[in-house]
Amino acid sequence: MNEWVDDRNVALLTDLYELTMAASYFENGMNGPATFDLSIRELPEQRNFLVVCGLEQALGYLEDLRFEDDSLSYLRSLGLFTDEFLSFLGGLSFTGKIWAVPEGETVFASEPLIRVTAPIIEAQIVESFLMNCITFQTMVASKAARVAVACGDRQFVDYSLRRDHGADAGLKAARASFIAGASATSNVLAGKLYGIPVSGTMAHSYVMAFESEISAFRAYARAFGDRTILLIDTFDVEDGGRNAAIVAKETEARGTRIKGVRIDSGDLASLTRSVRKILDEAGLDYMQIVLSGDLDEFHIRRLLDAGVPADAFGIGTQLGTSGDAPSLGGAYKLVEDERGPRIKLSTGKATTPGRKQIYRFSRGGESYDLITLEDEDVPGGRPLLEKVMEDGNAVRPSEPLAELRERCKRAISSLPRELLSLEGKQDPYPVRLSDRLQGLVDAMHGSSR
Amino acid sequence: MNEWVDDRNVALLTDLYELTMAASYFENGMNGPATFDLSIRELPEQRNFLVVCGLEQALGYLEDLRFEDDSLSYLRSLGLFTDEFLSFLGGLSFTGKIWAVPEGETVFASEPLIRVTAPIIEAQIVESFLMNCITFQTMVASKAARVAVACGDRQFVDYSLRRDHGADAGLKAARASFIAGASATSNVLAGKLYGIPVSGTMAHSYVMAFESEISAFRAYARAFGDRTILLIDTFDVEDGGRNAAIVAKETEARGTRIKGVRIDSGDLASLTRSVRKILDEAGLDYMQIVLSGDLDEFHIRRLLDAGVPADAFGIGTQLGTSGDAPSLGGAYKLVEDERGPRIKLSTGKATTPGRKQIYRFSRGGESYDLITLEDEDVPGGRPLLEKVMEDGNAVRPSEPLAELRERCKRAISSLPRELLSLEGKQDPYPVRLSDRLQGLVDAMHGSSR
Repeated sequence: MNEWVDDRNVALLTDLYELTMAASYFENGMNGPATFDLSIRELPEQRNFLVVCGLEQALGYLEDLRFEDDSLSYLRSLGLFTDEFLSFLGGLSFTGKIWAVPEGETVFASEPLIRVTAPIIEAQIVESFLMNCITFQTMVASKAARVAVACGDRQFVDYSLRRDHGADAGLKAARASFIAGASATSNVLAGKLYGIPVSGTMAHSYVMAFESEISAFRAYARAFGDRTILLIDTFDVEDGGRNAAIVAKETEARGTRIKGVRIDSGDLASLTRSVRKILDEAGLDYMQIVLSGDLDEFHIRRLLDAGVPADAFGIGTQLGTSGDAPSLGGAYKLVEDERGPRIKLSTGKATTPGRKQIYRFSRGGESYDLITLEDEDVPGGRPLLEKVMEDGNAVRPSEPLAELRERCKRAISSLPRELLSLEGKQDPYPVRLSDRLQGLVDAMHGSSR
Repeated sequence: MNEWVDDRNVALLTDLYELTMAASYFENGMNGPATFDLSIRELPEQRNFLVVCGLEQALGYLEDLRFEDDSLSYLRSLGLFTDEFLSFLGGLSFTGKIWAVPEGETVFASEPLIRVTAPIIEAQIVESFLMNCITFQTMVASKAARVAVACGDRQFVDYSLRRDHGADAGLKAARASFIAGASATSNVLAGKLYGIPVSGTMAHSYVMAFESEISAFRAYARAFGDRTILLIDTFDVEDGGRNAAIVAKETEARGTRIKGVRIDSGDLASLTRSVRKILDEAGLDYMQIVLSGDLDEFHIRRLLDAGVPADAFGIGTQLGTSGDAPSLGGAYKLVEDERGPRIKLSTGKATTPGRKQIYRFSRGGESYDLITLEDEDVPGGRPLLEKVMEDGNAVRPSEPLAELRERCKRAISSLPRELLSLEGKQDPYPVRLSDRLQGLVDAMHGSSR
């Protein structure tokens, strides 16, 4: 029996302090409306932009949030909570309002991706899950967008399941990768649950399980015809390429073109060229060469810049774990309550007060974002935060993944060109505060405590 | 509605190629017994040892593995599989045998952590999940063990939930951290499901939600008495320390000692010293100082080496994501089938053939592991691989986490001292092949293909 997170127990997937704080608010009769911003404090070194992802799951969580009886029993056993509070929790659901940057859109450091306005107990309790859900998926989508940029018109497939951090990460990494440009995933359950195309080749063990490499290739091609991709590096890659060519010609004679070959180890640049030659000389120019083996956007860029004739890439570890930046510094901060805007001044972790909007400007070659107070009238900019939940109910249907992919493609293609560099940029994308917001910040820095 | 992995759909949490290979084996009447080794190819730069973790979940998965009707319907919709194969899958369960290094034990590069012997279709299909499950949890336990080494006799608590990669990672990171030495977790669901002690303080938003810092402290201390840890860096840390001292004295007057304070930002070394002084001067030497804020084992070591009077640490991001090494290069390789031992020769990814055992030797200051063939008789060594599953059923009850913690503690304390350095070691722990195994490798390298 494994332990899984599901709709019935996810309310407890929270840090204990959310519940102790909630209990204290409850005891002190403090449950007025409060607003929290979820943002990413700083971009990792090699990120010039982020791609928002995970909103759909965040909204699903908020809509379904309930503390079931056995969750309450466990909380009671901790000896920390009063019966009154536990009974209150038993009746709690999320009744708040959510504004959010839609999935697939690009954002930058310190911008509020999600703004939660709700009775403070509700708004506090959901912090841990929202952070876990949004920052992880945004991290993967942002990495996948870089892979997509490196791939250009070549395709890439998410192979990350075996390296992802647990089962849920496997699912969500496939979704985030697909939104940001992957053409498919190897993860069958993600295919089923999200309708993402699934794709796969074969493992070395398959080749080894047959009497010879060519008999493995023949068996696979017979079963899977034009969907066949043969893994040719179990023994010697060039011999493997020749065996693949023989089997492809045999299959051609039966009226079917096999799809290609995959190389997973060795000097990919020179091996790909040799194998391309072997295939072309056999008249198999339609066969694709898929590369894999701990690739990332930098490898892909180098291979393609050198003219290596690779047609597609399988990306696992570096994609699903965002290997060079395996976390984002997400923050979930109180910015307003019944008394008005709030500010925190901790060293290096100061917050921007008030309910805010982000306007994106792009004119005459100049692009920038302006963060304003919610009620400012800003002509010419495109507001990024949209109302997605009211009174605890989503105010629009789920967005199909195809739309999120389109939005992401559009968002990335409209970024200033220099942000598409794979290296971290010296001059970050400009994000400014409006005069009114800056005035509020200054006033609160002066008067805080 | 969120999408969760559970016992009913986890069979599909696999890479598509596992199923296409299985279909091809099925079509070719190939379902004889095969043995696969799961191992970690190389240790990350800053790891001198790994702590095995995740076996319990792996065994749970294998015991419960079933393809439900709606999983089969989805597979049918892909147009890749015959009705005969899908019907076979519908009746499939795992019937094999598992040998494994028990959780909490230390292992090194290339050592088989798990050895799966089963009809090849079953052994192949379970690859993706076993890799995901074991390598992730082993990665976190191995990181947590380093944190434990750095902490020495100080405690540390898992605060990683918000930075973990999704919901399942949150649960499993808490478990792996606890096995490798964490004293508690902030993750309430992990507390419930695993019986891990839960611990928490308060967030900056809590302090900000009150009229003043001291009124927040008073409210919290009133509710949570001797379990109170006050977060003192929302405004100014030393002022926060003085406010905490006032509230502690007030609470003391009511007969209760509050537990301590937490500092989450700023120059932790000097702030901890100042706050210790403030507390001691108020006669509050029993109050602990807990530090947090993107800490890792190196920070902790530096602080403690400098004599900073910290009592405990909350570790989030770097623990749950193993920030400096967010993946392990797990491999799952065919090492034997009906025809005998098998070998793969891919560049940099060669495998060691045959069903193996690991013997650990430690005598007269010399420690090393000897990898042998299963049936070798090796006096003086302690065998690490134990039979944990036979005919698809676990052959022993689940091991309580307390025992795994003890095993881990023992395993780490019996490592050669130099491996406890936080830096990567030049000379790795010696792992040798027995003469018979080396002979088999040499013979197969000569004759392969």
